[in-house]
This record gives sequence, C-alpha cells and structure tokens, in this order.
Amino acid sequence: MSLTRTSVDFVDADRVSVADRGFTYGDGLFETLRMVGGCAPLWSRHAQRLAEGCARLRISPPDMAAIHAEVLRLANGLDDAVARVTVTRGVGARGYAFSDDARPTVVVTVSSLVLDASAYAEGIVVRQCAMRLAVQPALAGMKHLNRLEQVLARAEWNTPDIAEGLMLDTEGHVVCATAANLFAVVAGRLVTPSVDRCGVAGVARAEVGAVREVAQVRLSLAALIEADEVFLTSAVRGILPVRVFATRSWQPGPVARALQAHWREIGLPLPTGSKDSDR
Amino acid sequence: MSLTRTSVDFVDADRVSVADRGFTYGDGLFETLRMVGGCAPLWSRHAQRLAEGCARLRISPPDMAAIHAEVLRLANGLDDAVARVTVTRGVGARGYAFSDDARPTVVVTVSSLVLDASAYAEGIVVRQCAMRLAVQPALAGMKHLNRLEQVLARAEWNTPDIAEGLMLDTEGHVVCATAANLFAVVAGRLVTPSVDRCGVAGVARAEVGAVREVAQVRLSLAALIEADEVFLTSAVRGILPVRVFATRSWQPGPVARALQAHWREIGLPLPTGSKDSDR
Repeated sequence: MSLTRTSVDFVDADRVSVADRGFTYGDGLFETLRMVGGCAPLWSRHAQRLAEGCARLRISPPDMAAIHAEVLRLANGLDDAVARVTVTRGVGARGYAFSDDARPTVVVTVSSLVLDASAYAEGIVVRQCAMRLAVQPALAGMKHLNRLEQVLARAEWNTPDIAEGLMLDTEGHVVCATAANLFAVVAGRLVTPSVDRCGVAGVARAEVGAVREVAQVRLSLAALIEADEVFLTSAVRGILPVRVFATRSWQPGPVARALQAHWREIGLPLPTGSKDSDR
Repeated sequence: MSLTRTSVDFVDADRVSVADRGFTYGDGLFETLRMVGGCAPLWSRHAQRLAEGCARLRISPPDMAAIHAEVLRLANGLDDAVARVTVTRGVGARGYAFSDDARPTVVVTVSSLVLDASAYAEGIVVRQCAMRLAVQPALAGMKHLNRLEQVLARAEWNTPDIAEGLMLDTEGHVVCATAANLFAVVAGRLVTPSVDRCGVAGVARAEVGAVREVAQVRLSLAALIEADEVFLTSAVRGILPVRVFATRSWQPGPVARALQAHWREIGLPLPTGSKDSDR
C-alpha cells in the first residue's frame, strides 16, 4: 500500500466541501508531477500550465510559490513520489454562474511511486480506444477536471499487458493516449498531434518541444502505423517507447532513447525497480 | 440567506474525500429537483435518468428508494426547496482506471428556493452564447459532472435582466440553454432539439414529451427566430416562455400556458413570490 499525504488550502486535511465547484461541476484544473528525492524538476512547466488554465477559466490564480512549497513539504523524505495539485474555482452557490472573486481551493496530494522499468527498456503495448475525443477548442489543451472521456476510454480494457490506449478525435485524427501525449517520427520528422481542438498540452510534451524540433500536426492512423518510431510522454511516467500498436511493432528508437537520456539529465532518472502501479 | 441541509452517504455531513472521483475527474452525475411542500413530484423521472446515467458510466447503481427518502428527510418542513442529488463513482486510486465494484458516493443537498414569478407570467429575455457545445454522443443526454462548457457559457453575461443563454453545438445547431431545455412551435409543430450528440435530456423535457406530441429535431437559428412560440423547460424553474431572443420578441403562447397549467396540476404550482435566485 502506498503512502499518501494530503492537504487542502495548505492545511493537512483530506476532505473538501460538497459545494466546491470542483465537485459540483468539475470546475477546475489539475497537475500530476513526478517527484524525485523531494524535488519536482518540471515544476516551472506545471506552474505555467496551471496559471494559463486558470486564466482561460477565469479562476483567480493561486499562489504558485506557495503551492510549490506545499508540494515539497508533503514530499519531504520520499525518494520517488507523485504529486497531484488540484485547483478549483472554490466553494460556490448553486448554479453555473460564478463570482470573479471566488477564492480558489488548492488540494495537494503526494503519494509514493514505483514505476515500471521494463516499460522504459523494452517499450509498451498500446491499443486503440473506441471512445473518441470531442472537438472543443474552448477547453482543448487544458488539464481540467472534466475527464469523463478519459475515464470511459481507460475502462475499455483491463489487461495489465496493455499499458495505454490511443484516442482519436471525433473526426478520426490520432490525438493522444488516455493519460499521455503521443510522438512519432514520420518520414524523418518528429511530430506530435496538435492539441488546439482537443487533448491536453502535456508538460512532458512541452519539455520535448524545448529540446527537439517538433512539428504539431493532424496525424492520421495510417501515418502513425507507417512511422519509424512512436513513443508516449507523461510528466509522471516519462518517455515510453511504443513497442506494439495495432498491426505494427517497433524497437525503441534513437529519438526516444535520446529523450530518456535527457530525462535523466534533468533529474528524472529511469526507474530501476521492477513492477508497478504506473498509471 | 437560504437555508441549506446536506448529507453524504445518508449521514448529515458537508464534505467529501479529495480522492472522490467526482472531485478528481467529474466522474459522476447529478439531479436538481424542485420540491414543494416536502414532496418531489417528478422524482420518478429523476430516478430513471440517474439510473440510466449510472448504467452508461458503469457506476454501481445507488439505492434509489434510499435517495428519495433522504431527499424527503432533508426537505422536511420546507415549503419551497431545491434538492441536488450527486452520485459519483466513489473514492478511487490515482489514475483513470476504476474498479467495477467501487461504492458510489451519494450527496444530497436541499436548499430553500424562491422562484421569480414574473418569469412565468411575462416570459424571459434570452441571449445567444458564443460558447459552443462539443459533439460527443458518448456523453450526450446525461446530466454528468463535466460541466465546464455550461460554466463558461454562463460566464458570458452578468446582467440580471437576461435569464438564460442559448447554446449551439459546434456545428451550429441550437441545442439548449445553459441550464434548461428549449422548445419551439415551428409551423404549428412542437419541436425540441435532439440531445443524442450533446446537451442534457432534461426531466422537465421528458415530462413535456409525456403529455404533448413533440418532434426531436436538429434546429437551426433561422427556424428558431421564425418560431410561433419559444419556451424553456427546467425541473427547477418549470416552463419559462421566452419573451425576447435576438431580433425577435414573443408573447407567452398557448402551448407554454397549457404546460404551465399542467405543471400546476402535477404539484408544481407557479411561484407566487416576487424576485429571486432563479438559477
């Protein structure tokens, strides 16, 4: 059983009001970050995305420095951990209307983490989900709390040998996995699906874009199947080569291997343990 | 200030776990019902929709009779009240995957209610929202907890003289208001937009369909503007004639008046008070 520590509005607690708009409407955002040795190497990217999401949803921006300090406080003494930061619009009255001066609720949860080393070394098996992502530019890119599409997609399989499911949008483009972004090397070019109409702009995806030239494209299934290399990215799970998808199989390729090395260099080492709860 | 009574899992309480999937992913459903003299006349329709939503989301069905009893318990002694019943997948581990035997969380909140009598007598002013509804058949019709589209739509105006905003889907069809369904009399025929691709299948909408012949259609803005009569329906607010929308104005029409009379007959009288919190 993994250790979990939780705070609500910077005080040790594990419950929120039933009138919190995060609970009543999914009216908020979250970040999930990997922590190593008590530090969160990609924190600045998480803070930036969270601030951008708050601006788009007109949620009063929380104190990012205080959230960072809280994450560090709860992760203190843990070698490998995952932190979830949830920011909601706060407690509200009945109805969709909100007051612009509502005080946001900040929930931080830190849990111990064991990642699956074999996923990094050998790659993962990925399936295609029947569940599609709706096209909604007003919400695209954000890691908001309206996640029923992902919940239903992840419910399509229950076999531990399948690590992830790829999701297409309602128009048939490949967008992402249920909880990871997707990259492919297509005709020698590193590409990732655009997330301006659906999908989440992942923090690991942004880190890849900062160190490699990446084209944001509309990606077809046919192009994906023909790719030279395919991998997933996740702030918690890092760089995951795709070994099998549909009729194709791949060996982990040079781009994924180089990015795994980069991940090590920025303080996110490959896991050395064996099996896990890697979602 | 309105009176509010709340229970969680049938015990007086007003907080839920931060690990509740309603809070982490909006993974649940809700019902909002009008109560008069301690009774909920449309309860059976609410219970049916809630059960159907649970089945579609694979949430273990809660005990509907126990929920009904809980709603009545909390509304005891209140003449006019609104109850919200929230059912989530319950507390879960990290990640989108869920266990089919998760125990659902049931939250019931009852608040005193004052409705706006003038809205019934004279009709309401309605605007058009810029925010569009994404097309997502897998979630359409359900009153689930992923409500950011409605939250953002409702945030487009802040003037008390506008009672509601109409929402179009991303393909341009008129679907509903932010928190009500829409009906129109077009060329002598009562129609309401289909909710098989987006929108909520409202309980009041179902009640109208049970007593009137209604065609479910894809409705264009042009057809709406040309309609002989337009009204909104809401389980809490009842039958609301639309007095002004865009370039058109209407008088409350005979269909809306007949349905208001039906509402009275089933135990949901028109409000006699004056102003309100009518959302």
